[in-house]
Amino acid sequence: MAFLSGLSAFPITPSDRGGHVDTAALKRLVTRLCTAGVDSIGLLGSTGTYMYLSREERRRALSVAIDETGASIPVVVGVGALRTDEAVRLAQDAKASGAAAGLLAAVSYAPLTEDEVFEHFSTVARESGLPIVIYDNPGTTHFRFTANLVERLAHVPGIVAIKNPTEKPEEISSHLAQQRSMTPKGFPIGYSGDWSAAEAMICGADTWYSVLAGILPDVCLRMVRAAQNGDVEEARRLDATLSPIWDLFKQFSSLRTVYTIADLLGVSKAEPPRPILPLPALAKEKVAHCLTLLEQDLA
Amino acid sequence: MAFLSGLSAFPITPSDRGGHVDTAALKRLVTRLCTAGVDSIGLLGSTGTYMYLSREERRRALSVAIDETGASIPVVVGVGALRTDEAVRLAQDAKASGAAAGLLAAVSYAPLTEDEVFEHFSTVARESGLPIVIYDNPGTTHFRFTANLVERLAHVPGIVAIKNPTEKPEEISSHLAQQRSMTPKGFPIGYSGDWSAAEAMICGADTWYSVLAGILPDVCLRMVRAAQNGDVEEARRLDATLSPIWDLFKQFSSLRTVYTIADLLGVSKAEPPRPILPLPALAKEKVAHCLTLLEQDLA
Repeated sequence: MAFLSGLSAFPITPSDRGGHVDTAALKRLVTRLCTAGVDSIGLLGSTGTYMYLSREERRRALSVAIDETGASIPVVVGVGALRTDEAVRLAQDAKASGAAAGLLAAVSYAPLTEDEVFEHFSTVARESGLPIVIYDNPGTTHFRFTANLVERLAHVPGIVAIKNPTEKPEEISSHLAQQRSMTPKGFPIGYSGDWSAAEAMICGADTWYSVLAGILPDVCLRMVRAAQNGDVEEARRLDATLSPIWDLFKQFSSLRTVYTIADLLGVSKAEPPRPILPLPALAKEKVAHCLTLLEQDLA
Repeated sequence: MAFLSGLSAFPITPSDRGGHVDTAALKRLVTRLCTAGVDSIGLLGSTGTYMYLSREERRRALSVAIDETGASIPVVVGVGALRTDEAVRLAQDAKASGAAAGLLAAVSYAPLTEDEVFEHFSTVARESGLPIVIYDNPGTTHFRFTANLVERLAHVPGIVAIKNPTEKPEEISSHLAQQRSMTPKGFPIGYSGDWSAAEAMICGADTWYSVLAGILPDVCLRMVRAAQNGDVEEARRLDATLSPIWDLFKQFSSLRTVYTIADLLGVSKAEPPRPILPLPALAKEKVAHCLTLLEQDLA
């Protein structure tokens, strides 16, 4: 199996009000992912609130995940930061801790030019020696990667894969074909956006970078395996079963929803870092109802 | 004169590659502003790269500015951060250092809801005791304040003024009238966006939050005084004189341009924090040419 192909599960990073990581709760989350047998773990992704945690807390979280997975499951870790030197240090920490790769987003405050993003990514790859996954997440960074920039970056030594944002299901096939034609042979191309992931995997994407898999890995893994085995009908059936969850993600954001699911499942009572607020009671009931339905459907 | 009315000048914060503030260069910048007699100084605004500097470096920068201005000119300081608790600490630092107010932007990574931004602002105002200026800057934060949210926030104790983003010149008058009708009597309303500032001040805005004034305060002050004295013709004439500078701001961003101006004037050789790159040589020549023209026009 190619590097980082299949299901990459992105757990939350439980932390207290002061931004101190709850390592016991994180360990529970990682153990669930190991037990399910996901193909990789996406630690400290956007769902893992990496931008809200200090360097020291990120290092603590990574250490727990690496201890728990051992050599069995690769850990990809968010190393994004506003400053290039800080991203380099985070990538160096990740390499020293044994992460398989670093997820690097074009985090910005002052809007960045294409050349600035190119320099940023090249510098982090070169100065850390950590394999870097391009993390294209315009919903949080507001930076838009052009096809041309992806092509330039994909040929930089040490930049090894891409995590694309959600594409409309009907556009994934052509997007994937175009990106394959502009990236080196074997360059793993994956997608975020859980609600169009089934279609992405059916179209032949290498990786599903999944928020839901961070808390409900089993059903996500069944969907990925069905798509990988060419069982399109079963992949679409499971995707349809999950559509109430996708609706919650769209209404409340996937981040706020999975915090609530983790709470309802008794895995973690943590709230997202402020200013992000936990879902209000009515929304929480709606999530609970969806979970019950899902359990029945999958029984 | 009302609190924070007139010209608020936003200098860059010169720092080295490691994010360490060059206090000598910052002092030179602040001294220029004091000599010119600006009405307030907007330290560590977006132009002052506050989001790229550590808490300790922000404290050092503020201390230099307060020492230099004494009690003569109020210093408004950027206290924005991704985490609410961090913004509270920065606002507490600012209060302890003697800042007149804190500029708070809706900095985000995960997109925020209106209620989250309301809570964030209320918490910072309440827990710091520092007067807070709403800093609406969708170009960097990508959060959009609705009229309703501004109205709610303007009535929170301790929230004392607003810095609006650039409005189209033809829309400033109605925007200002609407905001006046929804905010308490005497709530100072100001605008960013140097290229439409003349129009904003002519329309009766209280404050021009100015990037250019951070490095060329005299001409900006002449424009503000003309508008304040009802000399519309003179305000528009000075604005027209500055139009080549506004074109540079639009083409290269005001941030990158004022770093170059500071370098050309011999005030600071600092570069912006990476990943932001200094302007390339050709652009720098263009800036130098504009400066020469401006000196002739103002001679």
